[in-house]
Amino acid sequence: MTYCVGLCLDKGLVFMSDTRTNAGVDNISKYRKMFTWNVPGERTFVLMTAGNLATTQAVVSMLEERTKAPEERNPSILEVPSMFQAARLVGKTLRDVIKESAPAAGPDAESPFRATLILGGQIAGSEPRLFMIYPEGNFVEASKETPFFQIGETKYGRPILVRAHDPAMSFAEAVKLLMVSFDSTLKANLSVGLPLDLLLYETDSLDILKQTRIEEDDPYYSLISDNWGEALKTTFASLPQYRL
Amino acid sequence: MTYCVGLCLDKGLVFMSDTRTNAGVDNISKYRKMFTWNVPGERTFVLMTAGNLATTQAVVSMLEERTKAPEERNPSILEVPSMFQAARLVGKTLRDVIKESAPAAGPDAESPFRATLILGGQIAGSEPRLFMIYPEGNFVEASKETPFFQIGETKYGRPILVRAHDPAMSFAEAVKLLMVSFDSTLKANLSVGLPLDLLLYETDSLDILKQTRIEEDDPYYSLISDNWGEALKTTFASLPQYRL
Repeated sequence: MTYCVGLCLDKGLVFMSDTRTNAGVDNISKYRKMFTWNVPGERTFVLMTAGNLATTQAVVSMLEERTKAPEERNPSILEVPSMFQAARLVGKTLRDVIKESAPAAGPDAESPFRATLILGGQIAGSEPRLFMIYPEGNFVEASKETPFFQIGETKYGRPILVRAHDPAMSFAEAVKLLMVSFDSTLKANLSVGLPLDLLLYETDSLDILKQTRIEEDDPYYSLISDNWGEALKTTFASLPQYRL
Repeated sequence: MTYCVGLCLDKGLVFMSDTRTNAGVDNISKYRKMFTWNVPGERTFVLMTAGNLATTQAVVSMLEERTKAPEERNPSILEVPSMFQAARLVGKTLRDVIKESAPAAGPDAESPFRATLILGGQIAGSEPRLFMIYPEGNFVEASKETPFFQIGETKYGRPILVRAHDPAMSFAEAVKLLMVSFDSTLKANLSVGLPLDLLLYETDSLDILKQTRIEEDDPYYSLISDNWGEALKTTFASLPQYRL
Protein backbone atom coordinates (compact mmCIF):
# COMPACT_ATOMS: atom_id res chain seq x y z
CA MET A 1 0.00 0.00 0.00
CA THR A 2 0.97 3.63 0.19
CA TYR A 3 0.36 6.80 2.11
CA CYS A 4 0.65 10.24 0.48
CA VAL A 5 -0.63 13.62 1.63
CA GLY A 6 -0.83 16.93 -0.24
CA LEU A 7 -1.56 19.94 1.91
CA CYS A 8 -2.55 23.53 1.02
CA LEU A 9 -1.19 26.28 3.22
CA ASP A 10 -1.51 30.04 2.89
CA LYS A 11 2.24 29.96 2.26
CA GLY A 12 2.22 27.23 -0.37
CA LEU A 13 1.93 23.48 -0.84
CA VAL A 14 3.44 20.59 1.13
CA PHE A 15 3.76 17.04 -0.17
CA MET A 16 4.79 13.87 1.64
CA SER A 17 4.83 10.28 0.39
CA ASP A 18 6.13 6.96 1.65
CA THR A 19 8.18 4.59 -0.51
CA ARG A 20 6.95 1.09 0.27
CA THR A 21 5.28 -1.06 -2.35
CA ASN A 22 4.16 -4.60 -1.84
CA ALA A 23 2.73 -7.42 -3.86
CA GLY A 24 2.08 -9.68 -0.89
CA VAL A 25 4.04 -9.46 2.34
CA ASP A 26 6.88 -11.48 0.84
CA ASN A 27 7.42 -9.06 -2.01
CA ILE A 28 8.20 -5.67 -0.55
CA SER A 29 10.16 -3.06 -2.46
CA LYS A 30 11.12 0.57 -2.22
CA TYR A 31 9.92 2.89 -4.97
CA ARG A 32 9.68 6.62 -5.27
CA LYS A 33 6.04 7.78 -5.41
CA MET A 34 6.74 11.50 -5.80
CA PHE A 35 7.61 12.97 -9.19
CA THR A 36 8.32 16.55 -10.21
CA TRP A 37 8.37 18.63 -13.36
CA ASN A 38 10.04 21.92 -12.65
CA VAL A 39 10.88 24.82 -14.99
CA PRO A 40 12.08 27.47 -12.52
CA GLY A 41 10.28 30.76 -12.97
CA GLU A 42 7.65 29.21 -15.23
CA ARG A 43 5.99 26.12 -13.69
CA THR A 44 6.37 23.56 -10.91
CA PHE A 45 4.36 20.32 -10.80
CA VAL A 46 4.43 17.62 -8.13
CA LEU A 47 2.72 14.27 -8.70
CA MET A 48 2.20 11.59 -6.02
CA THR A 49 0.92 8.11 -6.82
CA ALA A 50 -0.98 5.34 -5.01
CA GLY A 51 -2.18 2.06 -6.44
CA ASN A 52 -0.92 -0.44 -8.97
CA LEU A 53 2.80 0.18 -9.50
CA ALA A 54 2.79 -0.86 -13.16
CA THR A 55 0.01 1.65 -13.78
CA THR A 56 1.67 4.53 -11.93
CA GLN A 57 5.08 3.89 -13.51
CA ALA A 58 3.49 3.80 -16.96
CA VAL A 59 1.65 7.07 -16.28
CA VAL A 60 4.86 8.82 -15.24
CA SER A 61 6.79 7.38 -18.19
CA MET A 62 4.13 8.53 -20.61
CA LEU A 63 3.97 11.98 -19.07
CA GLU A 64 7.73 12.18 -19.52
CA GLU A 65 7.32 10.92 -23.10
CA ARG A 66 9.73 8.07 -22.55
CA THR A 67 7.99 6.41 -25.48
CA LYS A 68 10.08 8.71 -27.68
CA ALA A 69 13.81 8.84 -28.31
CA PRO A 70 15.54 10.99 -25.70
CA GLU A 71 16.22 13.88 -28.10
CA GLU A 72 12.58 14.03 -29.21
CA ARG A 73 11.07 14.14 -25.75
CA ASN A 74 9.11 17.31 -25.23
CA PRO A 75 6.66 16.49 -22.45
CA SER A 76 3.38 18.19 -23.17
CA ILE A 77 2.88 18.59 -19.42
CA LEU A 78 5.50 21.35 -19.74
CA GLU A 79 3.35 23.07 -22.35
CA VAL A 80 -0.18 22.98 -20.94
CA PRO A 81 -1.44 26.52 -20.31
CA SER A 82 -3.08 25.87 -16.89
CA MET A 83 -3.06 23.60 -13.83
CA PHE A 84 -6.55 22.50 -14.84
CA GLN A 85 -5.23 21.35 -18.20
CA ALA A 86 -2.33 19.61 -16.46
CA ALA A 87 -4.81 17.68 -14.28
CA ARG A 88 -6.81 16.76 -17.40
CA LEU A 89 -3.68 15.54 -19.15
CA VAL A 90 -2.61 13.44 -16.15
CA GLY A 91 -6.16 12.11 -15.70
CA LYS A 92 -6.43 11.15 -19.37
CA THR A 93 -3.04 9.44 -19.27
CA LEU A 94 -4.06 7.50 -16.16
CA ARG A 95 -7.38 6.41 -17.68
CA ASP A 96 -5.67 5.36 -20.92
CA VAL A 97 -3.06 3.27 -19.07
CA ILE A 98 -5.71 1.51 -16.98
CA LYS A 99 -7.84 0.87 -20.06
CA GLU A 100 -4.89 -0.59 -21.94
CA SER A 101 -3.88 -2.87 -19.04
CA ALA A 102 -7.35 -4.17 -18.43
CA PRO A 103 -9.17 -4.55 -21.73
CA ALA A 104 -11.62 -6.99 -20.19
CA ALA A 105 -11.99 -5.43 -16.76
CA GLY A 106 -12.07 -1.79 -17.75
CA PRO A 107 -11.48 0.94 -15.21
CA ASP A 108 -14.24 -0.30 -12.91
CA ALA A 109 -14.19 -0.44 -9.13
CA GLU A 110 -12.72 -3.93 -8.82
CA SER A 111 -9.89 -3.62 -11.34
CA PRO A 112 -6.50 -4.36 -9.80
CA PHE A 113 -4.90 -1.89 -12.23
CA ARG A 114 -6.37 1.13 -10.47
CA ALA A 115 -4.36 4.06 -9.19
CA THR A 116 -5.15 7.39 -7.57
CA LEU A 117 -2.96 10.46 -7.91
CA ILE A 118 -2.38 13.80 -6.23
CA LEU A 119 -1.19 16.62 -8.50
CA GLY A 120 -0.19 20.01 -7.17
CA GLY A 121 1.77 22.98 -8.38
CA GLN A 122 1.64 26.36 -10.02
CA ILE A 123 2.03 27.95 -13.44
CA ALA A 124 3.28 31.55 -13.76
CA GLY A 125 0.38 33.99 -13.70
CA SER A 126 -2.09 31.80 -11.82
CA GLU A 127 -2.64 30.49 -8.29
CA PRO A 128 -1.11 27.28 -6.90
CA ARG A 129 -3.63 24.43 -7.12
CA LEU A 130 -3.97 20.91 -5.73
CA PHE A 131 -5.96 18.07 -7.34
CA MET A 132 -6.86 14.49 -6.53
CA ILE A 133 -7.17 12.43 -9.71
CA TYR A 134 -9.29 9.26 -9.79
CA PRO A 135 -8.70 6.07 -11.81
CA GLU A 136 -11.53 7.13 -14.11
CA GLY A 137 -9.45 10.17 -15.07
CA ASN A 138 -11.69 12.78 -13.46
CA PHE A 139 -10.52 14.86 -10.54
CA VAL A 140 -11.45 17.18 -7.68
CA GLU A 141 -9.65 20.26 -6.44
CA ALA A 142 -8.71 21.21 -2.88
CA SER A 143 -10.52 24.20 -1.44
CA LYS A 144 -10.63 26.25 1.75
CA GLU A 145 -13.07 23.73 3.24
CA THR A 146 -11.07 20.69 2.08
CA PRO A 147 -7.49 21.89 2.18
CA PHE A 148 -5.72 18.52 1.94
CA PHE A 149 -5.87 15.24 0.05
CA GLN A 150 -4.73 11.81 1.20
CA ILE A 151 -4.30 8.71 -0.96
CA GLY A 152 -3.52 5.10 -0.02
CA GLU A 153 -3.84 4.06 3.64
CA THR A 154 -5.58 7.27 4.63
CA LYS A 155 -7.50 6.41 7.78
CA TYR A 156 -4.91 5.97 10.54
CA GLY A 157 -3.33 9.36 9.92
CA ARG A 158 -6.53 11.28 9.32
CA PRO A 159 -7.69 12.21 12.86
CA ILE A 160 -4.61 14.34 13.60
CA LEU A 161 -4.80 16.06 10.19
CA VAL A 162 -8.47 16.89 10.74
CA ARG A 163 -7.74 18.29 14.18
CA ALA A 164 -4.43 20.08 13.83
CA HIS A 165 -4.39 21.38 10.25
CA ASP A 166 -4.51 25.14 9.99
CA PRO A 167 -3.90 26.92 6.67
CA ALA A 168 -1.97 29.63 8.50
CA MET A 169 0.64 27.20 9.80
CA SER A 170 4.29 27.52 8.78
CA PHE A 171 6.11 25.02 6.58
CA ALA A 172 7.95 23.76 9.68
CA GLU A 173 4.66 23.12 11.50
CA ALA A 174 3.18 21.44 8.44
CA VAL A 175 6.16 19.08 8.20
CA LYS A 176 5.73 18.24 11.88
CA LEU A 177 2.02 17.58 11.33
CA LEU A 178 2.69 15.30 8.37
CA MET A 179 5.35 13.42 10.31
CA VAL A 180 2.88 12.74 13.13
CA SER A 181 0.24 11.64 10.62
CA PHE A 182 2.73 9.35 8.85
CA ASP A 183 4.04 7.99 12.15
CA SER A 184 0.50 6.99 13.22
CA THR A 185 0.08 5.21 9.88
CA LEU A 186 3.46 3.47 9.97
CA LYS A 187 2.87 2.27 13.52
CA ALA A 188 -0.46 0.70 12.55
CA ASN A 189 0.13 -0.62 9.03
CA LEU A 190 3.10 -2.61 7.75
CA SER A 191 2.36 -1.76 4.13
CA VAL A 192 3.44 1.85 4.64
CA GLY A 193 7.14 2.37 5.31
CA LEU A 194 10.12 4.68 5.59
CA PRO A 195 11.89 6.44 3.95
CA LEU A 196 9.54 9.33 3.23
CA ASP A 197 9.81 11.93 0.48
CA LEU A 198 9.09 15.53 1.41
CA LEU A 199 8.62 18.51 -0.89
CA LEU A 200 7.83 22.10 -0.01
CA TYR A 201 6.55 24.60 -2.57
CA GLU A 202 6.25 28.30 -1.72
CA THR A 203 3.47 30.23 -3.47
CA ASP A 204 4.69 32.29 -6.45
CA SER A 205 8.26 31.03 -6.11
CA LEU A 206 7.76 28.85 -9.22
CA ASP A 207 10.55 26.62 -7.95
CA ILE A 208 10.98 23.84 -5.40
CA LEU A 209 11.72 25.33 -1.97
CA LYS A 210 12.93 22.06 -0.49
CA GLN A 211 12.93 18.44 -1.56
CA THR A 212 14.42 15.84 0.73
CA ARG A 213 14.23 12.19 1.72
CA ILE A 214 13.57 11.29 5.34
CA GLU A 215 15.57 8.10 5.91
CA GLU A 216 15.04 5.36 8.48
CA ASP A 217 17.55 6.95 10.85
CA ASP A 218 16.38 10.55 10.43
CA PRO A 219 16.91 12.13 13.86
CA TYR A 220 13.93 14.52 13.61
CA TYR A 221 11.54 11.77 12.57
CA SER A 222 12.74 9.56 15.45
CA LEU A 223 12.36 12.47 17.85
CA ILE A 224 8.79 13.13 16.70
CA SER A 225 7.89 9.45 16.72
CA ASP A 226 9.21 8.87 20.25
CA ASN A 227 7.93 12.13 21.69
CA TRP A 228 4.51 11.84 20.11
CA GLY A 229 3.99 8.37 21.56
CA GLU A 230 5.05 9.51 25.02
CA ALA A 231 3.13 12.77 24.77
CA LEU A 232 -0.02 10.90 23.73
CA LYS A 233 0.24 8.70 26.80
CA THR A 234 0.81 11.67 29.09
CA THR A 235 -2.04 13.59 27.50
CA PHE A 236 -4.27 10.56 27.79
CA ALA A 237 -3.39 10.14 31.46
CA SER A 238 -4.18 13.81 32.11
CA LEU A 239 -7.77 13.52 30.85
CA PRO A 240 -10.42 13.39 33.56
CA GLN A 241 -11.20 9.94 34.93
CA TYR A 242 -14.39 8.01 34.19
CA ARG A 243 -16.50 7.26 37.26
CA LEU A 244 -17.90 3.74 37.25
CA MET B 1 -20.75 1.06 9.02
CA THR B 2 -19.92 0.28 12.62
CA TYR B 3 -17.18 0.48 15.20
CA CYS B 4 -16.90 -2.05 18.05
CA VAL B 5 -13.97 -2.84 20.35
CA GLY B 6 -13.50 -5.71 22.79
CA LEU B 7 -10.61 -5.32 25.21
CA CYS B 8 -8.92 -7.79 27.59
CA LEU B 9 -7.68 -6.41 30.88
CA ASP B 10 -6.13 -8.21 33.83
CA LYS B 11 -9.30 -7.23 35.69
CA GLY B 12 -11.77 -8.45 33.06
CA LEU B 13 -13.28 -7.55 29.70
CA VAL B 14 -14.51 -4.23 28.30
CA PHE B 15 -16.86 -3.88 25.33
CA MET B 16 -17.94 -0.79 23.43
CA SER B 17 -20.07 -0.49 20.29
CA ASP B 18 -21.67 2.32 18.34
CA THR B 19 -25.30 2.20 17.16
CA ARG B 20 -25.36 3.66 13.66
CA THR B 21 -26.33 1.60 10.66
CA ASN B 22 -26.63 2.89 7.15
CA ALA B 23 -27.72 1.67 3.78
CA GLY B 24 -26.56 4.72 1.89
CA VAL B 25 -26.23 8.14 3.50
CA ASP B 26 -29.96 8.75 3.10
CA ASN B 27 -30.92 5.67 5.08
CA ILE B 28 -29.42 5.96 8.54
CA SER B 29 -30.85 4.17 11.55
CA LYS B 30 -30.01 3.42 15.14
CA TYR B 31 -29.61 -0.24 16.12
CA ARG B 32 -28.09 -1.97 19.10
CA LYS B 33 -25.00 -3.96 18.12
CA MET B 34 -24.26 -5.36 21.57
CA PHE B 35 -26.13 -8.43 22.87
CA THR B 36 -25.77 -10.33 26.12
CA TRP B 37 -26.66 -13.74 27.53
CA ASN B 38 -26.22 -13.68 31.25
CA VAL B 39 -26.93 -16.38 33.85
CA PRO B 40 -25.49 -14.83 37.02
CA GLY B 41 -23.06 -17.15 38.77
CA GLU B 42 -22.89 -19.48 35.78
CA ARG B 43 -22.06 -17.71 32.52
CA THR B 44 -21.90 -14.29 30.91
CA PHE B 45 -21.61 -13.79 27.14
CA VAL B 46 -21.33 -10.53 25.21
CA LEU B 47 -21.67 -10.42 21.42
CA MET B 48 -20.95 -7.40 19.22
CA THR B 49 -21.77 -7.28 15.53
CA ALA B 50 -20.51 -5.49 12.42
CA GLY B 51 -21.64 -5.97 8.84
CA ASN B 52 -24.92 -6.66 7.10
CA LEU B 53 -27.75 -5.84 9.51
CA ALA B 54 -30.09 -8.54 8.17
CA THR B 55 -27.34 -11.09 8.76
CA THR B 56 -26.46 -9.96 12.28
CA GLN B 57 -30.11 -9.70 13.35
CA ALA B 58 -30.77 -13.19 12.01
CA VAL B 59 -27.74 -14.55 13.87
CA VAL B 60 -28.90 -13.06 17.17
CA SER B 61 -32.47 -14.23 16.62
CA MET B 62 -31.31 -17.76 15.89
CA LEU B 63 -29.00 -17.81 18.91
CA GLU B 64 -31.98 -16.78 21.01
CA GLU B 65 -34.07 -19.47 19.29
CA ARG B 66 -36.72 -17.00 18.23
CA THR B 67 -37.64 -19.52 15.54
CA LYS B 68 -39.45 -21.40 18.32
CA ALA B 69 -42.54 -20.48 20.32
CA PRO B 70 -41.60 -18.38 23.36
CA GLU B 71 -42.25 -21.18 25.87
CA GLU B 72 -40.05 -23.63 23.95
CA ARG B 73 -37.03 -21.39 23.69
CA ASN B 74 -34.01 -22.92 25.36
CA PRO B 75 -31.02 -21.26 23.70
CA SER B 76 -28.25 -23.78 23.32
CA ILE B 77 -25.73 -20.98 23.84
CA LEU B 78 -26.79 -21.24 27.50
CA GLU B 79 -25.85 -24.93 27.49
CA VAL B 80 -22.49 -25.11 25.72
CA PRO B 81 -19.80 -26.36 28.11
CA SER B 82 -17.03 -23.91 27.13
CA MET B 83 -16.34 -20.50 25.58
CA PHE B 84 -14.68 -22.31 22.69
CA GLN B 85 -17.92 -24.18 22.01
CA ALA B 86 -19.86 -20.93 22.31
CA ALA B 87 -17.61 -19.37 19.64
CA ARG B 88 -18.13 -22.44 17.42
CA LEU B 89 -21.89 -22.19 17.84
CA VAL B 90 -21.93 -18.50 17.00
CA GLY B 91 -19.56 -19.04 14.07
CA LYS B 92 -21.67 -21.86 12.67
CA THR B 93 -24.84 -19.79 13.04
CA LEU B 94 -23.20 -16.87 11.24
CA ARG B 95 -21.93 -19.07 8.40
CA ASP B 96 -25.35 -20.71 8.00
CA VAL B 97 -27.16 -17.36 7.87
CA ILE B 98 -24.75 -16.00 5.24
CA LYS B 99 -25.02 -19.21 3.21
CA GLU B 100 -28.80 -19.06 3.30
CA SER B 101 -28.94 -15.40 2.27
CA ALA B 102 -26.52 -15.78 -0.57
CA PRO B 103 -27.02 -19.13 -2.25
CA ALA B 104 -25.30 -17.93 -5.41
CA ALA B 105 -22.61 -15.74 -3.90
CA GLY B 106 -21.64 -17.95 -0.95
CA PRO B 107 -19.69 -16.56 1.99
CA ASP B 108 -16.87 -15.25 -0.22
CA ALA B 109 -15.01 -11.99 0.14
CA GLU B 110 -17.34 -9.92 -2.03
CA SER B 111 -20.65 -11.05 -0.60
CA PRO B 112 -22.72 -8.17 0.72
CA PHE B 113 -24.22 -10.45 3.37
CA ARG B 114 -21.00 -10.66 5.36
CA ALA B 115 -20.68 -9.86 9.04
CA THR B 116 -17.91 -10.05 11.62
CA LEU B 117 -18.51 -10.59 15.32
CA ILE B 118 -16.74 -10.20 18.65
CA LEU B 119 -17.71 -12.68 21.36
CA GLY B 120 -16.41 -12.45 24.91
CA GLY B 121 -17.33 -13.77 28.30
CA GLN B 122 -16.76 -16.45 30.86
CA ILE B 123 -18.23 -19.75 31.99
CA ALA B 124 -17.90 -20.84 35.64
CA GLY B 125 -14.72 -22.85 36.15
CA SER B 126 -12.75 -21.44 33.22
CA GLU B 127 -11.00 -18.22 32.26
CA PRO B 128 -12.69 -15.27 30.54
CA ARG B 129 -12.04 -15.38 26.79
CA LEU B 130 -12.45 -13.05 23.83
CA PHE B 131 -12.94 -14.13 20.20
CA MET B 132 -13.25 -12.50 16.81
CA ILE B 133 -15.52 -14.51 14.51
CA TYR B 134 -15.23 -14.24 10.72
CA PRO B 135 -18.00 -14.52 8.10
CA GLU B 136 -16.66 -17.97 7.22
CA GLY B 137 -17.53 -19.09 10.76
CA ASN B 138 -13.97 -19.58 11.96
CA PHE B 139 -12.47 -17.44 14.70
CA VAL B 140 -9.35 -16.26 16.50
CA GLU B 141 -8.82 -15.65 20.19
CA ALA B 142 -7.27 -12.65 21.91
CA SER B 143 -3.96 -13.24 23.65
CA LYS B 144 -1.38 -11.35 25.69
CA GLU B 145 0.23 -10.17 22.46
CA THR B 146 -3.09 -9.22 20.83
CA PRO B 147 -5.26 -8.16 23.74
CA PHE B 148 -8.04 -6.43 21.81
CA PHE B 149 -10.23 -6.83 18.74
CA GLN B 150 -11.85 -4.16 16.61
CA ILE B 151 -14.55 -4.67 13.96
CA GLY B 152 -16.08 -2.24 11.47
CA GLU B 153 -14.32 1.08 10.87
CA THR B 154 -11.20 0.03 12.75
CA LYS B 155 -8.45 2.22 11.37
CA TYR B 156 -9.08 5.74 12.71
CA GLY B 157 -9.25 4.60 16.32
CA ARG B 158 -6.41 2.10 16.18
CA PRO B 159 -3.31 4.28 16.75
CA ILE B 160 -4.38 5.34 20.26
CA LEU B 161 -5.35 1.77 21.20
CA VAL B 162 -1.98 0.46 20.02
CA ARG B 163 -0.17 3.12 21.99
CA ALA B 164 -2.12 3.47 25.22
CA HIS B 165 -3.50 0.00 25.91
CA ASP B 166 -2.05 -1.63 28.99
CA PRO B 167 -3.58 -4.85 30.40
CA ALA B 168 -2.98 -3.54 33.93
CA MET B 169 -5.22 -0.51 33.41
CA SER B 170 -8.35 -0.04 35.50
CA PHE B 171 -11.89 -0.23 34.10
CA ALA B 172 -12.12 3.56 34.39
CA GLU B 173 -8.95 4.03 32.32
CA ALA B 174 -10.12 1.49 29.76
CA VAL B 175 -13.43 3.34 29.33
CA LYS B 176 -11.49 6.57 28.83
CA LEU B 177 -9.26 4.87 26.24
CA LEU B 178 -12.24 3.50 24.33
CA MET B 179 -13.96 6.88 24.39
CA VAL B 180 -10.88 8.52 22.86
CA SER B 181 -10.68 5.77 20.22
CA PHE B 182 -14.39 6.13 19.41
CA ASP B 183 -14.15 9.91 19.35
CA SER B 184 -11.33 9.78 16.76
CA THR B 185 -13.49 7.47 14.65
CA LEU B 186 -16.67 9.52 14.99
CA LYS B 187 -14.83 12.72 14.08
CA ALA B 188 -13.47 11.15 10.89
CA ASN B 189 -16.30 8.92 9.66
CA LEU B 190 -19.98 9.77 9.41
CA SER B 191 -21.02 6.12 9.32
CA VAL B 192 -20.12 5.65 13.00
CA GLY B 193 -22.33 7.50 15.47
CA LEU B 194 -23.50 8.07 19.01
CA PRO B 195 -25.00 6.73 21.22
CA LEU B 196 -22.47 4.12 22.33
CA ASP B 197 -23.08 0.96 24.32
CA LEU B 198 -20.62 0.12 27.07
CA LEU B 199 -20.30 -3.10 29.06
CA LEU B 200 -17.80 -4.01 31.78
CA TYR B 201 -17.21 -7.58 32.88
CA GLU B 202 -15.06 -8.37 35.93
CA THR B 203 -13.14 -11.66 35.87
CA ASP B 204 -14.81 -14.45 37.88
CA SER B 205 -17.82 -12.29 38.76
CA LEU B 206 -19.96 -14.27 36.27
CA ASP B 207 -22.25 -11.28 36.04
CA ILE B 208 -22.34 -7.93 34.26
CA LEU B 209 -20.48 -5.32 36.30
CA LYS B 210 -21.91 -2.39 34.37
CA GLN B 211 -23.91 -1.92 31.19
CA THR B 212 -24.85 1.54 30.07
CA ARG B 213 -25.64 3.65 27.04
CA ILE B 214 -23.59 6.76 26.37
CA GLU B 215 -26.05 9.20 24.82
CA GLU B 216 -25.39 12.17 22.54
CA ASP B 217 -25.40 14.56 25.50
CA ASP B 218 -23.31 12.42 27.86
CA PRO B 219 -21.25 14.93 29.88
CA TYR B 220 -18.20 12.65 30.28
CA TYR B 221 -18.06 11.84 26.57
CA SER B 222 -18.32 15.54 25.71
CA LEU B 223 -15.59 16.34 28.22
CA ILE B 224 -13.26 13.70 26.75
CA SER B 225 -14.05 14.71 23.18
CA ASP B 226 -13.39 18.42 23.81
CA ASN B 227 -10.38 17.92 26.06
CA TRP B 228 -8.76 15.34 23.81
CA GLY B 229 -9.00 17.63 20.78
CA GLU B 230 -7.51 20.53 22.72
CA ALA B 231 -4.89 18.34 24.40
CA LEU B 232 -3.82 16.92 21.03
CA LYS B 233 -3.29 20.41 19.69
CA THR B 234 -1.31 21.47 22.76
CA THR B 235 0.75 18.27 22.65
CA PHE B 236 1.36 18.75 18.95
CA ALA B 237 2.48 22.35 19.51
CA SER B 238 4.88 21.21 22.25
CA LEU B 239 6.77 18.82 19.95
CA PRO B 240 10.16 20.08 18.75
CA GLN B 241 10.08 22.22 15.60
CA TYR B 242 11.33 21.04 12.20
CA ARG B 243 14.22 23.08 10.82
CA LEU B 244 13.86 23.80 7.13
